[in-house]
Order: sequence, then structure tokens, then C-alpha cells
Amino acid sequence: MRENTARPAVLPVAPTRSRLRPLGLDEVRITGGFWARRRRTNATVTLGHCRDWMERAGWTGNFRAAAEGRIHRDRRGREFADSETYKLLEAMAWAAAGGGPDTSLDADTAALTEVIAPAQDPDGYLNTAFGRPGQQPRYSDLEWGHELYCHGFLIQAGVAQARARGEGELTKIARRAADHVCATFGQGGIESVCGHPEIETALVELARLTGEQRYLHQAALFVERRGHGTLADIEFGRAYYQDDTPVRQATVLRGHAVRALYLAAGAVDVAVETGDDALLAAVVRQWENTVARRTYLTGGMGSHHRDEAFGDDFVLPPDRAYAETCAGVASVMLSWRLLLATGEPRFADLAERTLFNVVAASPSEDGRAFFYANTLHRRHRGTVPPADTQSPRAESGLRAPWFAVSCCPTNVARTLAQLPAYLATADDHGVQLHQYADAEIATSLAGGHGVALRVRTDYPSGGHVAVRIGRAPAHPWTLSLRVPAWTAGATAWLVDPDGVRRAVAPGTAEVTRVFRPGDEVRLELPVAPRWTHPDPRIDAVRGTVAVERGPLVYCAESVDLPVGHEADAIRVDPSTEPEDAPAGPDDASGTGGTVLVPGELAAPGDVPDDAWPYRPLGLPAAPRAADRAGIALVPYHTWANRGPSTMRVWLPTTQPPTRSTGR
Amino acid sequence: MRENTARPAVLPVAPTRSRLRPLGLDEVRITGGFWARRRRTNATVTLGHCRDWMERAGWTGNFRAAAEGRIHRDRRGREFADSETYKLLEAMAWAAAGGGPDTSLDADTAALTEVIAPAQDPDGYLNTAFGRPGQQPRYSDLEWGHELYCHGFLIQAGVAQARARGEGELTKIARRAADHVCATFGQGGIESVCGHPEIETALVELARLTGEQRYLHQAALFVERRGHGTLADIEFGRAYYQDDTPVRQATVLRGHAVRALYLAAGAVDVAVETGDDALLAAVVRQWENTVARRTYLTGGMGSHHRDEAFGDDFVLPPDRAYAETCAGVASVMLSWRLLLATGEPRFADLAERTLFNVVAASPSEDGRAFFYANTLHRRHRGTVPPADTQSPRAESGLRAPWFAVSCCPTNVARTLAQLPAYLATADDHGVQLHQYADAEIATSLAGGHGVALRVRTDYPSGGHVAVRIGRAPAHPWTLSLRVPAWTAGATAWLVDPDGVRRAVAPGTAEVTRVFRPGDEVRLELPVAPRWTHPDPRIDAVRGTVAVERGPLVYCAESVDLPVGHEADAIRVDPSTEPEDAPAGPDDASGTGGTVLVPGELAAPGDVPDDAWPYRPLGLPAAPRAADRAGIALVPYHTWANRGPSTMRVWLPTTQPPTRSTGR
Repeated sequence: MRENTARPAVLPVAPTRSRLRPLGLDEVRITGGFWARRRRTNATVTLGHCRDWMERAGWTGNFRAAAEGRIHRDRRGREFADSETYKLLEAMAWAAAGGGPDTSLDADTAALTEVIAPAQDPDGYLNTAFGRPGQQPRYSDLEWGHELYCHGFLIQAGVAQARARGEGELTKIARRAADHVCATFGQGGIESVCGHPEIETALVELARLTGEQRYLHQAALFVERRGHGTLADIEFGRAYYQDDTPVRQATVLRGHAVRALYLAAGAVDVAVETGDDALLAAVVRQWENTVARRTYLTGGMGSHHRDEAFGDDFVLPPDRAYAETCAGVASVMLSWRLLLATGEPRFADLAERTLFNVVAASPSEDGRAFFYANTLHRRHRGTVPPADTQSPRAESGLRAPWFAVSCCPTNVARTLAQLPAYLATADDHGVQLHQYADAEIATSLAGGHGVALRVRTDYPSGGHVAVRIGRAPAHPWTLSLRVPAWTAGATAWLVDPDGVRRAVAPGTAEVTRVFRPGDEVRLELPVAPRWTHPDPRIDAVRGTVAVERGPLVYCAESVDLPVGHEADAIRVDPSTEPEDAPAGPDDASGTGGTVLVPGELAAPGDVPDDAWPYRPLGLPAAPRAADRAGIALVPYHTWANRGPSTMRVWLPTTQPPTRSTGR
Repeated sequence: MRENTARPAVLPVAPTRSRLRPLGLDEVRITGGFWARRRRTNATVTLGHCRDWMERAGWTGNFRAAAEGRIHRDRRGREFADSETYKLLEAMAWAAAGGGPDTSLDADTAALTEVIAPAQDPDGYLNTAFGRPGQQPRYSDLEWGHELYCHGFLIQAGVAQARARGEGELTKIARRAADHVCATFGQGGIESVCGHPEIETALVELARLTGEQRYLHQAALFVERRGHGTLADIEFGRAYYQDDTPVRQATVLRGHAVRALYLAAGAVDVAVETGDDALLAAVVRQWENTVARRTYLTGGMGSHHRDEAFGDDFVLPPDRAYAETCAGVASVMLSWRLLLATGEPRFADLAERTLFNVVAASPSEDGRAFFYANTLHRRHRGTVPPADTQSPRAESGLRAPWFAVSCCPTNVARTLAQLPAYLATADDHGVQLHQYADAEIATSLAGGHGVALRVRTDYPSGGHVAVRIGRAPAHPWTLSLRVPAWTAGATAWLVDPDGVRRAVAPGTAEVTRVFRPGDEVRLELPVAPRWTHPDPRIDAVRGTVAVERGPLVYCAESVDLPVGHEADAIRVDPSTEPEDAPAGPDDASGTGGTVLVPGELAAPGDVPDDAWPYRPLGLPAAPRAADRAGIALVPYHTWANRGPSTMRVWLPTTQPPTRSTGR
């Protein structure tokens, strides 16, 4: 790892040392394409949508009620409702940083900060659910109270403000809260942790911002304390909040997915700042096992609705996938930290998959509705959620405007707001591109030599990436481009500024030379649709296949079938390759385009059942009418945007699958 | 339907009119075999085990604390803890009825009744969780409070005492409670229902006992009120407690499985007593759709851990099967009521499946530990539950002595105690045998003509059933025997007293004649092990098969594999028939014996994973070593009796399944 010399970049994550140096929102700008549209909607619609809903739900009002001494009777929302305001403030800070001269976000931030400030106690404690007359005492319910979780997001918001707009009132509130946390949970204080990890990564980031090591030490203390059973043994078991096994001994992520991922991200932060290679290696091992055995094709994590938790190895039921949006956000946070720490492209691969197929799947096209859970199979059409009341979070038929537990909308908002920072990094040898979008990148290499790049791409509909050099030092340096893991089995090409074309394997493709302004490096990725089949140990999808195209997972949706047919009536024939639909990838919508696969479609209608759905082998049910048909598939992230529908990612085959490999 | 003239039989369910007349515990005695052993353990071990645990957990003490005015600070257990004492009292009443001269159960009942009695309020209300100073007011939380649920079980216990031992103090307490319920929830009272149905069936049974129609009317009112949204719309939705759709409009069971099944049983009771054929038809339709689309091979019901609920149609994941023991008990209650009302053997078929594969699976051989959830697939070995603390209910690796929510042990206990009543019925034409066990049956037919039968069988290990006539009228009558639905695809034979042998199809086999003492009717059922395959719409078990033998579902358990192998390493070859293991069915243990199936066993050990468990079609993973092997299977109900193990009911095949039928 290398030291990152202090510099005034607008960085969501700013390790003092790392293998790769992150670039700030002042260094990377997304200028067009898929993510530009999503970010525009986020900035112009979603931020306001969240603010309005928090006001309407009374969650912002909780701060006023606290300041006015009536919170014990007037409080609204769940115990963690405060955190939504903080996450929104963080999102607004990053959006303001990338938003140019418009200062309305700054005014909104100031107004919300004025609401929050009077609710902070003199010692820095800030929570509207605990500690006042008529409420439970502070930290009397570490298992479920979320007080440190809320403080963590407050600190993240304060850091974001300082980095994006300069230190302001919100940053001061955050520092006071952090000082309170250190005073209360430091050596000699309460020797426990929060039921929901989050404070760890927040404290490290504050240490990075301020240079004050006590914040880092407190974060390290929280990471080391967990796993020793200081929290109660609840019905879900202590694994629910990762208090079953110390972080450095665990081999896989387990329990509540968002908690597990936030904790792992915090552990990486601590490991990087303290140079603790053993801790870093432990998290890498957990990531590897989790990706190999506990992750959905979409990148989604969490197989249980009951406890919003990871399942056992290979328990990945598509129809009961929880795959919470916040777990997707947290997975990207973890992969990004591991990418910075190690430089290994596999972490960017998972981040890409998760961004396109979980984070992008949550918000509707108009930015006013969200998925909380991201199922991979929907058996009956949902009903349109009410526009004016909060929806249950686990209902996954259609996106809803707000939830009783509404962590996901603001988490998506802060992720989209900071997205440019995930695109590229630098090191002593050059610049690395990890995610592909139309973008302008300007930074300096070692010795202060400026580099400027312009990226043009039709990603994710197409696989053409062109990187044009705008400014470059006069000496040789290296431009690195990630060749996605999804290209395995097809050929990707790299074209250097001289027009020399060479096949490149998944991993990293590099061009090292003296670049001149106007030089162009091109990457050509094979985005033809492809069949994907699952590990035979995933019982829930035995005998099915899926279709992917570039970084996008596809699905069949009933709105694309003849009237009256449902997605469960589909059988596909994987002996023939899937193809782009005649109209070609739908570049105009930027969603990735429609794909056609050969198959059969059973006749619609409520066919009579057998009285008992199990029968002796050799006594098959009467065959039902099925027509050969081309089945249209659409990118998973677009599903349910056209009204209620049934949906499948994993499609049963008309042909028997290949013989089991005995695994 | 026919009127059942009043007679002093010891009947758990005593409809005043029905197609078939139930026989009492004074008319049917189980004398040996599988269920006799289970019942003996229940009477001699489990009843005391439950009483000791309730004392230790403080649940019995709640009644004392209530009487002594300290319950607001001393109460222990969940809001429904009172009901366990009542269910135990019911179990003790039925056990005493069948237990001969030993009066220790009567003494125990008297002692427990003395504990309960002082906690009853003057107006009949009895609940230790509500209504006293420092507690929530009565009926302030109908959604979760379980007050009517508790009253319901109290009434059931009072009815059981009256029927089994004559009306006593417990019956008086129960009547006062029922009077309170009618006064409080009748016309002009609280116009709502309990979040957990149960009171319905209890009130009907009290009406049957006492002849007082107001109890029946109150039950009918509760049935009709449900489905109209008088309960809150919780995160699980109102379907959780069946308050989404009126009973007579619903087409399938949904929501919390135990709630749905108790409600359906109560609706049948109301329909039968009031002659409401439309209501009965509605429940029959719900039963049909639930059995065809929402029931596990074991008879287990409930696919969701999150809300202990039915899933959508064909959502039956074996590894996340909840299949709560109490849902099995409730399903038997429902099927029995439908069998009495209609006389159709399909209801006895499901009851048999559920008794052998859910109810019998819950308790351990020694009667001191229980499954709460009954999974059909266990991926990792469980740990031995603590002997002295309550276990989480959803942990399903090994049976546990007691649970924080411990509804299942007492529910199993009361079911085993009343089991003889499920064996046979009578009508004007003769006697019907529905379940097979060594038994002695004595009743009278129309006109007071006595009939006595003696049943001998090796069921469920074998399929020989011999019914010997002990006493019979001098005129012709009909002996009916259920030919189980599981015999479909093989041949069952009936042998009449003259030795004439004829093939009989699933349904009912009858012999009508003038029987003489010593006459014997024999039924020969084909219990050879057989492959069973699932409806292709059950996604979670595509590409797998199961083995059944007679009424028993089988499973593979890792304790029967070479050391180090797990159940997930098994692939079976269904092109060859399963066979009884060389030693033959293990009659000695009475468990049904071991079966051998051909297959493969992958090499053990923690093989390295692929980094990502999804790959392009045509790029299969490297095959792993697999040896041909005979795989031993054991009856599902015996699993986990030999220590921690991994287990599967549905076994992936080495061969591709037959081509999809396009359903």
C-alpha cells in the first residue's frame, strides 16, 4: 500500500494509505448515459421526494418535538427514523458537490441542520427515541435501539458536508456526537457494541477527515469487541448481529445482511488505517466465501425474509430472495474498500453487478418509488402500492413510494450521488478505470503531473469503451481498464492508440506508454446475450438457466407475454443461443435492450390441479398444451416499471439439463 | 348428515349431526404397535415433562402471581403462556380417560386447577397478561394479545374434563370464561375477533357439551366477523390472521398456518351445527386448493419462517419449510372434522400422512424433546440444544426440550392422548376404519346392536390389516376400510371372511354381510418403497425425487453415510426401484424400516468452490469424484434421533428427469 498524501479531494472514502488512490467528485464527472440519467433523476426528484416523505411521516418533526420537550408522546416512526434525515443530508452534500452552481441543496441542508441542532444534548448525544423524560434510558437497548447506528449516519453526513462544501454546522454536530460516542464507549465505558453496525466506518472516516486518531481507535474497539457475545442471545441467535464470532475469526458473512456488510466495510477501514493485514485478510476470506456461496446472480445478498439474513451456503431461493436494496448498497461499499486496499478487479466486478442489478433495480424510472426487497421470481401480479401511505418493506410486487422501515430510498440516493467516485482510481503508475460510463476524469499523477481523460461508451447496452487522452505527462504511464469477469467464454479486445488490437482476458488490461493528447484507447467487450447456469448445489434453481447480457441480468416478465400468460408458463430451450431482439438493443432507453430466447409457453388459464401435487414416478401428469414461442426478456433492473406483472430470472428448460457433475 | 343422538361417549369432537358418528375414547382402544408406543411415552413421560418445564419457566407461577397481586412485575413468558397449562390439562383429561384405574392424572389436574382458579376474575375473565394494575387493559391488543386464544384452550380443557371424567371445577372455570366471552364479544359488545383463531372451535364444543346455543352463536359470530378488517393492517398484512377475506369467500388457506387451520376447523364446526352447507363447501374448497398447491409431501403446512405462513401456490422450499408441528396438529383437526361431515376418505388420507410425518416427527423417541419447525432439508449439522434453557423455535437441527414459544409440545401431547378417537367411526350402516393400528373397538349400531372388532396390523412397517369380529348383530351391516390414496399405482387387496380376495382401488373398500364372531376381514396394502416425483410447478424441488413407503415419507440422513459425507452429496438413480434393506423393515423398532436406493455419493471434504457459482452454459465445472453407492433412507419421522446430521427428503437425480410436460 502507498500513503495518500493529503489533498482537498471530495472523497466519500479517503484512506490515508491504499493500493489505489480514490478520485474525488471534483475529479470525476459522469457526463451521459445510463448513470447520468439515474443521477439526474436522483438529484432533481428523489432527494425532494425523500425530504417530503420524512416530513409527512413525522420523522423530521421528531427533532422539533425533542427540542420542544414533547417527544415522549409525539414521536413517530421506528427507533432508527433519525438516520434517514442524516442519510439524506449525506446524499445532498455529495449531490451539491457534483451539481455545479445551484445552491438550493445548500439551503436545504442548512434548513435541515437547523431542525436537528436543537435536539442535540449538551454532551453530544443525539437521538429522538431515547434518554428524555418518558423515554427509555440511553443505551438501554443496544440490541435494537440503533443509537450508535444513528450516530454513525450523522457522522457520515458531517464528513460529507466537510468534504463537499467545507466544514459547517452539520460537521460540528457530528464531531460532538463522535466525541460523545468515544467518551461513552471507550476504555472504561460501556463495553459493548450496537446491534446494528455502522458507527465503525463512520468513525474511521471522521478520523481520516480530522486526523484525530481517537476516532479510529474507537472504531477498532467496536470491531474487536463484536463477536464476544456482549449483546443478548435473541431468538435469531447472536449471528443476527455478528456477535457470534470475532471478525478476524469468521470465515463467511452471516446473519442480517446489511449489518454483516456494514461491519465488514468498517473492519476494512480499520485494517487499512492500522495496517492490520490479518484483519484485512479475514474480511477478504469472508467476501470470497460469501460471493462463492451466498450471493444471488444479481449480486443481491440475503436469502431470508424472517431475519433479513444470509442463508446457509447455497440457500438462494429466487422466489424468497430478500436481497435488500441496502444490502446491495453495503456490498458496493465493501467491494469498493477492498478494491482500494488490494487493487484486485474482482471487487470491481461484484460492485458492477450489484450496481446494475440491485442498486439500479430499486428506484423506479421516475425516482419516486423503490424496491426494498429485490426478488428474482414473482409468482403473482402485485397490486399498486398506495401513493400516500407507507408500504410494508417485504412486499416486492411493485415499487412503493415509502416504507415504514424506509432505509433503502435514502441509501440509494446517497449512493447515486457519490457514484462518480466509484469509476476510477490512480496510483504512482497511472490511472485505473473500474466502471464504465461517459465521463470526464482529471487528476494528477505522482509529481503533480496532470492527466485528463474523456470516456465515451454505450455501456451497458453496448460494449464499446473509448478513452481519449486530454492531458498527459511527457513520460510513460499506465492506463488500466478492467476487463469484466462476465466476458469469460467470449473475447474482449483492447485497441491501443496505434490501432493495434489484442485479445484481453478477464482482469486488467493495460497500456503503458507516453500518451499524447488525442490518443485513444478502446476496449471492445462482447455483450451478446448468453445463457448462464447455476452451481448444482443451489437446490432452488436446479434445472433452470438464466440470461445475461454484458453486466446485466435479464428476466422474463408477463407484460411481454401474450395476454393471460404468466412468467411461470415459460420453458426455454438453451440448445439455441439467445439473441438481441430484431430492433436491437434499446439504446434510446439506455436500459440494455430486449433479448429473445427460444422456448415454449404453456396455455394460459387456471388449469385444474391434481388433487395432490406428488405422484409416483412413471405416472406423469397429463401433458398440457404448450406452444413454441420466442420469449422476450428484459433487463432485470427494469422489471415492474410497466405495472403489475409476474417475473422470473431463472427459467426452467424444455430440455433436460446436462448430467449432474456429482457435486 | 344424520343426528347423533346424545350418548355418554368420551369424544374430543362431538358434532350433534354428521355424516359419520365419531367413536369415543371409551369405544376405541389402541393396544399395540407404533401409536401405542408413542402414546405410552406421551402418558408416562411427556405430560410430566411439560408440567415440569412450565413450572420451571414460571408459566404456572403466573397464575399464582396474578392471584397474589404481583403479576405486573413477576410475569414470565410470552403473552400466550397461559394456554400451555390449558393444553396440558386437556391432554391429561384424554390420557386419564384412556389410562385405566391410575388416578394420579386426576390428582395432577386438581392441583393445577387449584393454581388457576384464584386467577379468574369474578366476571369470568382469566388471563395473566392483561387487565390488572400495571398491565395493559383487557382486549387492548386484539392483534397480538391472544386473550381469546387462551380462553379457547381453557374451554377445550373444561370440555375434555367433563367428557373424560365428568364435569368438575375446571369445567366450571371454563364455562364462566365462555360466559364472559359471550358477554363481551356478543351483539353490542366488542365487534372484533382475536388475532389468533381458536375460540371458535372451543365455543362450539362447549355448546355441544352443554346444549347451550349461545356459545354456538358466539362462535358463528366470530367466524362471520373475520375477513372484514376489524384487526389492524400489520406489516404481514391482514391475511396473516385471515382478516383479509371473509371465510365463506376465501378459496385457499393463507397467512399464519396455525391460525388459518384453527379458523377453518372452527368454521366446519359452525357449519355442521348450523346446517350451513355453503360455509362447509367454502372450507372444503380451501382445503382442496391448499392440499393441491400449498402442502409439503409430509403433510406439513407453512413455507415461510418470517410469518409462519403459507406461501404462494407451489412455494414449497424444502430447506426453509416451516411446517410447524402445531400446523400439523391443526391440519389433522381440520381433516377429521371434514371427514366426519362428509365421509370422504381423502380427509383421512391427509390426516394419516400428517400424523405419521409431522405429528410423529416432532417428539423424540424418549418424549422429552420436540421439533417446532419440521424442515425437509437440513444442510448443516445442528448443535445439541441446551437441556436446561428454552430454545429458539425455528432452529430445526435437533429436537429441543422446550421453547420460548412452546405451543408444540402440549399440542402433540393432547393429540396423542386423543388419538384412538381418530381411528374409526360408525353410521347407520356399520363401522368405518380410517386409520390402522392394533386396536379394540366396541360400539353400537342403530337400534343399539353391539359391535366389537379387534384390529391387528404391522402398520406402518407392513401393510397387513386384519379385522376380527368379536360381536355383531344378527342382521347384515357394512364394515368399511379406507384404501389409502398412497396405494395408487400398485394393487391393494381385500379378503373377505370367506377368503375371497379382490383388488381394491384407493378410496373405501366395503364388506356387507351378516358377520359372525370370529369372522375376519383382511386388507393387504402394497408397502414396497416407491419413487415419488413433484409437480413441475414446485420450483424448489425441480430435478429431484423422494421415496415413500406405505404412509411414510423417507429421507437420507448423514449418519447413514460413510464418515464425513453429507446428505447434499447424494445423487440417486430413479431408473431402478428402491428396495427394502436386506434386514427387511425394522419391525422391532416399529419405525418402518430402512430402504436402499441406487445412486452416487460425491467425495467428502470441503472442495474448493468456484469463485462465482454461476457460469456460462457449455463451461461446466470440473466433475468431482463420485462413487456408485446404495443410499440408505430412513423414515422421515425418525430423523435427528441419532444426533446431529444433515438430511434430505428430496434427492437430486443422477439422470435427467423426464422431459417437462409443459405445465
